[in-house]
Amino acid sequence: MAIEIERKFLVVGDGWRSLGAGTRYRQGYIATSGLVTVRVRTAGDKGFITVKGITVGDKRPEYEYEIPVSDANEMLDQLCARPLVEKTRYRIPQGPVVWEVDEFEGDNRGLVTAEVELKDENQSVTLPHWIGQEVTGDPRYFNANLVAKPFTTW
Amino acid sequence: MAIEIERKFLVVGDGWRSLGAGTRYRQGYIATSGLVTVRVRTAGDKGFITVKGITVGDKRPEYEYEIPVSDANEMLDQLCARPLVEKTRYRIPQGPVVWEVDEFEGDNRGLVTAEVELKDENQSVTLPHWIGQEVTGDPRYFNANLVAKPFTTW
Repeated sequence: MAIEIERKFLVVGDGWRSLGAGTRYRQGYIATSGLVTVRVRTAGDKGFITVKGITVGDKRPEYEYEIPVSDANEMLDQLCARPLVEKTRYRIPQGPVVWEVDEFEGDNRGLVTAEVELKDENQSVTLPHWIGQEVTGDPRYFNANLVAKPFTTW
Repeated sequence: MAIEIERKFLVVGDGWRSLGAGTRYRQGYIATSGLVTVRVRTAGDKGFITVKGITVGDKRPEYEYEIPVSDANEMLDQLCARPLVEKTRYRIPQGPVVWEVDEFEGDNRGLVTAEVELKDENQSVTLPHWIGQEVTGDPRYFNANLVAKPFTTW
């Protein structure tokens, strides 16, 4: 198990766009009735299944396994709730951290977020000029919630 | 993806008991709100995560992946619905097929079932004398349902 500590922000402008390479993500969720989420994802030509446990503060236990991309695509097509979340993720190194900028498409087009993963809760981080409002912990921006309430419906 | 075709029966008496070796299983389910189930299982010293799709007739798509047994135990202890399903599975070869006899424990003690996996829907199978009533398709005996309504509460 890994514990995720991350902060999430909205992105302002296009200043980030030339700073890193993008990978296409397609992900969906197996409908759950509790606080645990089960995500199926393709990232480029790889497939993953991820179980995320209950968030406490900004920590969330996460179990991720690589699986055949053909299995991931079958589960996305046949077992996951609609709409799927489609986005391009750009990895942007800035000093000691890597920003992951997600540019959403489809029903979530127009939304651009940036996440940074921290070593511990007290690590300070320098915000580049293209980083806007912090939305860490705002459930509307949880990717699992962008299925039931996509950004274009807000 | 594998497609499972299997028939399930109740077991009568103890005639099966000396015919095969047993492995301890501990399994639980991540609460789902649809027809898809997500199972976490330990089988002896191995761990697995399995996504099962929607049953059509006696066929069900299944995606199973081996995972670290320590991850499986953490998910069973922290993320899966209660009670866990605990059983010993005996693999009993009989001619061209292998019977899997499940002797349940805990809240499902007293229940003993036998499953046989078939190559196709029309394959005939010889029933040993310790095979009783067929319960294929009876949802009460789905292991996922033995969590919400364990056998001792019937």
